[in-house]
Amino acid sequence: MLALTILGNNSAIPAYDRNPTAQVLQCTDESFLIDCGEGTQMQMSKYKIKRSRINHIFISHLHGDHYFGLIGLITSMSLLNRTQDLHLHAPPQLEQLIKLQLDFASTQLNFPLHFHGIDAEGLVVETNKMTVHSFKVQHRIDCWGFLFKEKKNPRKLDPERAKIYEIPSAFYDRLQQGEDYITKKGTIVPNEEVTTEAPLPKTYAYCADTVFDESIAEKVKGVDLLYHETTYLKDLQERAADRYHSTTVQAGAIAKKAGVTKLLIGHFSSKYECLDEFLTETAEVFENTELAIQGCCYII
Amino acid sequence: MLALTILGNNSAIPAYDRNPTAQVLQCTDESFLIDCGEGTQMQMSKYKIKRSRINHIFISHLHGDHYFGLIGLITSMSLLNRTQDLHLHAPPQLEQLIKLQLDFASTQLNFPLHFHGIDAEGLVVETNKMTVHSFKVQHRIDCWGFLFKEKKNPRKLDPERAKIYEIPSAFYDRLQQGEDYITKKGTIVPNEEVTTEAPLPKTYAYCADTVFDESIAEKVKGVDLLYHETTYLKDLQERAADRYHSTTVQAGAIAKKAGVTKLLIGHFSSKYECLDEFLTETAEVFENTELAIQGCCYII
Repeated sequence: MLALTILGNNSAIPAYDRNPTAQVLQCTDESFLIDCGEGTQMQMSKYKIKRSRINHIFISHLHGDHYFGLIGLITSMSLLNRTQDLHLHAPPQLEQLIKLQLDFASTQLNFPLHFHGIDAEGLVVETNKMTVHSFKVQHRIDCWGFLFKEKKNPRKLDPERAKIYEIPSAFYDRLQQGEDYITKKGTIVPNEEVTTEAPLPKTYAYCADTVFDESIAEKVKGVDLLYHETTYLKDLQERAADRYHSTTVQAGAIAKKAGVTKLLIGHFSSKYECLDEFLTETAEVFENTELAIQGCCYII
Repeated sequence: MLALTILGNNSAIPAYDRNPTAQVLQCTDESFLIDCGEGTQMQMSKYKIKRSRINHIFISHLHGDHYFGLIGLITSMSLLNRTQDLHLHAPPQLEQLIKLQLDFASTQLNFPLHFHGIDAEGLVVETNKMTVHSFKVQHRIDCWGFLFKEKKNPRKLDPERAKIYEIPSAFYDRLQQGEDYITKKGTIVPNEEVTTEAPLPKTYAYCADTVFDESIAEKVKGVDLLYHETTYLKDLQERAADRYHSTTVQAGAIAKKAGVTKLLIGHFSSKYECLDEFLTETAEVFENTELAIQGCCYII
């Protein structure tokens, strides 16, 4: 199971208590921070996000509304005595900025910060539970989407039944991998007797900021949850294209073409106070749509 | 008259809805932003601060809690179609950072941004109504306090009385400068007949982050309002010194020695949820003290 919490859902200028982009994806004991607009650390406090669980941060591109909160978060993590490693996956130029900012403040972080520059599509990182791939989206500057996939889950063990067959607990790991058990007397205990099918691995695709680009559908095909930006309502299609952004119906079209289970829309322009129309317009194209609302947690 | 609005009153780590340092000093139609911690632009929206009146920004030093909100504010000003000049007075290295951040985002500001590096004590800027001087304070890195002085105000004209003496309105400016008026018949109308004393020019001193340093008292002597940091309560005097910060009683001692009218204290450590003790301890040394509270406007 994955859970996505929205910390910021607005586009460039913060407005109506809507913050710039930041999201946290949780997978049991691992959390991933996706983009980090100004104020992200305050949003984390507000919505009780545990910073200590975040070991990987992904920055899609170097427009400020997607990373101006990063240096503050990193500095605070250090002041709060973090010691464990932090991995930052971002466009390569960001490394220079972070170093300068720490240098000007004569700050030595308490923890190792590992910088990983993203300059191609492909595997960004593999953790115990997840793989994360980058894919290119079309924006005014280099911009990356991220595809998060749970690894195959182990089968679910029924310990009561395992006890009945007197299977030693040292063998449980192998049961969860699907092996049968053979007793001392040579009797086979079929795996299905003591385990059940693992839940299917879940997938989440984050499309960052992008102009309408049908080729994205191929890259996010069949994901359980797709986040696609909708900076504008459909009547401003031309402005959206000019600014390398998308509209409601365009996000819906991508979700439909990609055959995803659910669509989440965000990155709303500060010209809109009310968001109702975003949902209505998008859902006309792709029904299973939700608005990305700050503080809300979407279970995948 | 000057008016100071507090946008952030906390030290390094934001906590309990207290933001990092930022203040706005208003003088009729001119506003000055003093430091700009993360989230300052959101605080400006919350407390209805007009960004268009701000033409000068002062950054005391390059610890993040005093400037991480600057690039976001500048970017938003441009997105909001600001065209008038903006002057940034800050430690010289900041220029490189701002340029890099704009460059990485391929952002061209809509308005001229003038960078003025501060590397010595003295006059920083003179505007129509004010002079601003920098003075050195003692912190872990180079750090500047700022002394804001209203220029001598023009005398207050009573237009009803000026009419009685048939003084032409073209002469009003000279009346406000203190000149007597001589009628066509050669009669002298003494200035005091048609004007009253101008209100005394007001002064505000902002001491940024500093360890206890008695020599500051000389630099802020007799100001109407003194802002001095109190990161810690008095029992943590040693920690304060280690970190180049001050305590309550130390701020009180500076205010007393400098003979200021009123003391405002802030930059509270995030280890304190409740602020009552800050006021009690400081007021024991210097009675006319107030806590810097976010959103509050202090009339000078």
